[in-house]
Formats: sequence, structure tokens, C-alpha cells
Amino acid sequence: MEEQQRTEISSLGEFGLIDHLTRNNETRNAGTILSVGDDAAVIDQFGRQCVISTDMLIEGIHFDLMYTPLKHLGYKSVVVNLSDICAMMATPTHITISLGVSNRFSVEALDEFYEGVYAACEKYNVDLAGGDTTTSDKGFVISITAIGEVAPDKFVTRSGAKDGDLLCVTGTLGGAYLGLQLLEREKRIFVENPGVQPDLGNRTHNVGRILKPEARTDIVNWLQEKEIQPTSMIDISDGLSSEIMHLCKKSEVGCVLYENKIPIHDESRELAYEFNIDPTMCALNGGEDYELLFTVNQADYERIAGQPDVYVIGYMTKPEDGVKLHTKGGNVHDLVAQGWNPLAAEKKS
Amino acid sequence: MEEQQRTEISSLGEFGLIDHLTRNNETRNAGTILSVGDDAAVIDQFGRQCVISTDMLIEGIHFDLMYTPLKHLGYKSVVVNLSDICAMMATPTHITISLGVSNRFSVEALDEFYEGVYAACEKYNVDLAGGDTTTSDKGFVISITAIGEVAPDKFVTRSGAKDGDLLCVTGTLGGAYLGLQLLEREKRIFVENPGVQPDLGNRTHNVGRILKPEARTDIVNWLQEKEIQPTSMIDISDGLSSEIMHLCKKSEVGCVLYENKIPIHDESRELAYEFNIDPTMCALNGGEDYELLFTVNQADYERIAGQPDVYVIGYMTKPEDGVKLHTKGGNVHDLVAQGWNPLAAEKKS
Repeated sequence: MEEQQRTEISSLGEFGLIDHLTRNNETRNAGTILSVGDDAAVIDQFGRQCVISTDMLIEGIHFDLMYTPLKHLGYKSVVVNLSDICAMMATPTHITISLGVSNRFSVEALDEFYEGVYAACEKYNVDLAGGDTTTSDKGFVISITAIGEVAPDKFVTRSGAKDGDLLCVTGTLGGAYLGLQLLEREKRIFVENPGVQPDLGNRTHNVGRILKPEARTDIVNWLQEKEIQPTSMIDISDGLSSEIMHLCKKSEVGCVLYENKIPIHDESRELAYEFNIDPTMCALNGGEDYELLFTVNQADYERIAGQPDVYVIGYMTKPEDGVKLHTKGGNVHDLVAQGWNPLAAEKKS
Repeated sequence: MEEQQRTEISSLGEFGLIDHLTRNNETRNAGTILSVGDDAAVIDQFGRQCVISTDMLIEGIHFDLMYTPLKHLGYKSVVVNLSDICAMMATPTHITISLGVSNRFSVEALDEFYEGVYAACEKYNVDLAGGDTTTSDKGFVISITAIGEVAPDKFVTRSGAKDGDLLCVTGTLGGAYLGLQLLEREKRIFVENPGVQPDLGNRTHNVGRILKPEARTDIVNWLQEKEIQPTSMIDISDGLSSEIMHLCKKSEVGCVLYENKIPIHDESRELAYEFNIDPTMCALNGGEDYELLFTVNQADYERIAGQPDVYVIGYMTKPEDGVKLHTKGGNVHDLVAQGWNPLAAEKKS
């Protein structure tokens, strides 16, 4: 037999793999404005632009049904896709869902999942336009495609940040990661002592952040109303560090990030101390917050300051200045992306 | 613990399950013209209409990598989605791909898969607009969403067939099913005697039908050029019987199908005899042919007759006349859909 070269997928990482597989991708249709490599693709359809994003979630890799109610899973599966549409400054309008389910799931279980899907559709005014349901020999696989619309050339990519632009983030960070740690701890206790009931205390904030995230359509609407056009944008699914690195790489700029400006919820801070971990590390590397990270021209500073849920956490610099974290202690470190790599992930279940 | 009712998914069947899960689906956006329940959804985008379809393929359920080269799998995964777009009389323009892959696959293996994807994109003039690649703990999962466009209100659904319309089909039927039987036979021989090389003889037609199907964009283009507007249309993925039943149910009509008019390739007929199965049964219940089944007004008969790859196989009747098969022997039977049920499917591997 012919000897074949074997390169492990994990050796390239998620983003390296996508770059590799799409290196020869050609676009043939004039309507394809933006293809692989951003939060979503942009297609021109007779003047109006359509934004498309897709995501796959696999049981045991992306979620653990031991502590994820199916209704929450349905809701979250939709939201993470809508978040990608938001990250293009577009408005989500439609989704399609494909499910692979093993016969361990009943119709009632799927009903619960769909309750969550419909709740998200209602909240975000999105239509479920189609789907496919099939057998899987093991577990639960969810693939969702979200479609949105945006006024011509008003979409925002990862690649428009300029030297001097302000770096902004919505909401608070690190909360989902801490919620996950809490659920994992209670799962371990339960597995060892099935009689013990989970003690989630009053950690509603963090449990909510991991089980029921929201897409920031509110911020997209606010920016559109105020006619503030960000220069670049991405949603935070893998952690602040990883997303900053994406913006810097795609925009060919450097960045200064101030540790003391990173918004962290009080309950997250308390929970981090309980777990003996640094809340800043949770924000930088935790992921799954689904907040928006974006840059604006300095001239927009006063208008941005008027939105209480947007925080200016740094500014963009020349590429040769690198990507720097200014710590509370006054030190300056190179920022390193340690975001979650789904291709090297250990199983969650 | 509260006792919960448990209904097995397989008890509803694929179509029953989709009906059940989407029974309360509401559409909120005025642009949603056609939602769940056809080959694809239709969304109005400022006058022009956009058609969307999605499909999930799971290793061991939908394909067996023992006899499916990854390049062919990539090609076929795209084609089956484009076929759904064709079944709306629309022109495919874009796809997105989500993959779940276990670490048993190397980067070189994914390259092969993508070679097939790109070959299909090139052949059908379609752009790969985005995707997601993630870990699966086992096997290979493919989810593709295809997007197409169609002139306003020129899309064709399953529900417009009228009493007296002619029932037409493209190409030949049953070939893919017979190709699959051949590959399964050679696999069994190989598993028992790994030294024996597969003997696919000169069965290139049938092996090609199962491993490298094509989407009938050529027929859609021809119908558009000739300005023939079918009254209903569906693609043949589960077998002729099953698809006829869909058209009849959705259009609320009956049907007369002539066995001697069903187009079957000579090589399929020979292979069926070799396997001691009835070629007509392969066409009726085999599936995976990805040909188009459609109805036209009788006034279009002469124009349809001008297309050598379209066959008139029957006509639509009143709903109370039922769905009937007129056999070569002169008998009349009720047509029964025995199409492949992916929710009750046995594992292929």
C-alpha cells in the first residue's frame, strides 16, 4: 500500500484548519461579498445584503446533558448563531436546524429542545425556516444556520480596525466560564454521591450565563439608531484574548488592553475567589460569553460613553507595537490567546 | 421522580416527527413566504426570492466510509443539498458546511473531502460561503445548508398539482439503490476474505449513481428557458413511491402511475436480475436517485416531449381516486410508500 502522510487535525488548531481547508476557495458569484474567515458570510442580493452563519454543537464536546436542560440547550443553540449575525452588525431574520438524535431520546425530549428553540425565535423575532431530523448512532448533534440582513455595505468585519481606534466590549466577561466550573463541580459531587442535591447556592448570575446566554441584538440596534459604525467587530465565544488576537491579525494592528477596564460582574468575582482563580483570567480565556467586542473611531467616544452596557477597555496601536495587557499592578505583558480549542478539546462527559 | 411519558421517535417516522415538532411554528417576518414542510424554505428579500435547504449526513447512518471515498462523499454531500434547491425550480448559489470529525481523521483526509466539495462547487457554479469544523467524539458528521435564488413567485412547491396534470420524472430510477446493493455485497465478501479484491465488474453506471449523483440544474435551466412552469415538484431522495405520496398529500390529488413508463437504465435492469429483485421495486422504493419528479399542465405535453431526459409516467387524478399503480400485467394496485426511514434506519456500518 502507498504510504500516506498523516497530519493530526489538532496540530493545526481550529483556525489553522479552516485556513488550510479554504486556502483554495474561489468565489464565482459576483454576489459573494465576504466568504469564509469572519463571523459570517455576506451575500449581495439585488442591493440588500444577506448575512449567513453556521455552527455545529455535539453532545459530549460542546454540551453535557447531565446539567443542561434540553429547553436551555435549544435556546442556547439558536442564540450562539444569532450572536454571529450580530457580530456582523446585521439583524437576524431566519434559522434552519438540522438534528441528529439517537433513539435514547424520546419525542417528549425533542419537544423540550424545540420549546427552547421557539422561545429564542420569539424573543429575537426570528423565523424557523426549515430543517432536517435524522438518526445518529450515538448522542445528539445540532447544526444551525442563521441568516440575517443588513443595509448595503453597513456590515462590519474583523478587518477594519485602525491605529488609534477605541476597543469596546458589551456586558461583563468570564461569567459563563465560572458558571461552567460550578456546574462541573456539582456534577462531580453528584457522580460520587448521587444522594446529594446540587448546591448552586445563589449563583443565578453565573448559571444563567452558561445555560442561557443572549445575543446582543440590543446593542446592534442601539449602534444602528445612533448611526455609530464600528470599524471592526467580533463576538466573544472563545475568550477576550482570542477575539482580540483575531481583530488584530485581520486588521493588521496592535492593541493595548487595560486589565482594570475589563468588565467583570460582582458575582463572577466572588465565585472566582471561591474557586481560587483570577477573575481576569476567566474573562481573558473563559469564552462562551457571547458579548460583542468592537472598535470605533475616537471621534465616537462621547456617544459610546452614553451606553451604560458598553465599556472602553483599550485602544488599537501600530502592528509593530504588539498586543499588550497593562495589568492593575502596572506591568505590561504580551497578550496570549488561550481560547478553548474545540479540535483539541477533551470530552466533557 | 415524576413519571414522564415516552414516545419513541421511530413511532412517528421522519415526516411525522417534523410535522409534530413544527406544529406550533409561527412565522413573524413578512418575508417568510414558505417555511418548514417542502424541499426548501423561501424568503422574500426585497423582491428577489431566496431559497434555503439544509441536510445532515452521519457516518454509519447515511454513508459507509469503507466503500465511499472521501472525495466522493464531499461531492455527494453538496449535490444532495443542491438537489433540494433544484426541487424548488431555483438556482443554487451558495453553501455553508459544518463538519464534526473525530481524531481518527487526518488533515489529508479532510483535504480529500474538501476536494470533492470544491469539485461540486465548480461544476454547479456555487460558492462555499462559510462553515464550522469541530471535534466529534466518534465518526464524521456533515451538515450543509444550500442557498439559491429564484425569480419572484416562480418557485415550485409540492402542493400545486391539479387533477389531470401530467406526472414527469427526469433521468432513470433505481440505479443508486442497486449500486448500493453491489457495494454492500462486495463489502461483505471483503470482510469475510480480506484478500479478495472487490469485483465491481463493469457496473460503472450503478456505482456512479450511488457514489456520485448529480443535481438536475440542467433540467431546471431547460424548464426556465422553455418557460414551462411545473405545478408541483420534489426531488427523489427516498424513492419514487414516497415522493409521489408527498405530492399527492400536499396537493390533495390522486395519481395514476404506469409501471411500463418508469425509466430504468439497462444496466440497472441487468443488475436487478443478477440480485433477483424486481427493477420496478428498486425504482419505487430505492431512493437516492436525486432525479426530479414534477407535474405539468397537459397543455405543456408537447414541449415536455421535446426533452429526451424527461419521461411522462402518469397523471394526477381526483383525491378520492387514490394513488394507483397500473402494472405491466394489467393489474391496478394501491401505491404504498416504503421509502427509506432514516429515523428507523439500521446502521450501515
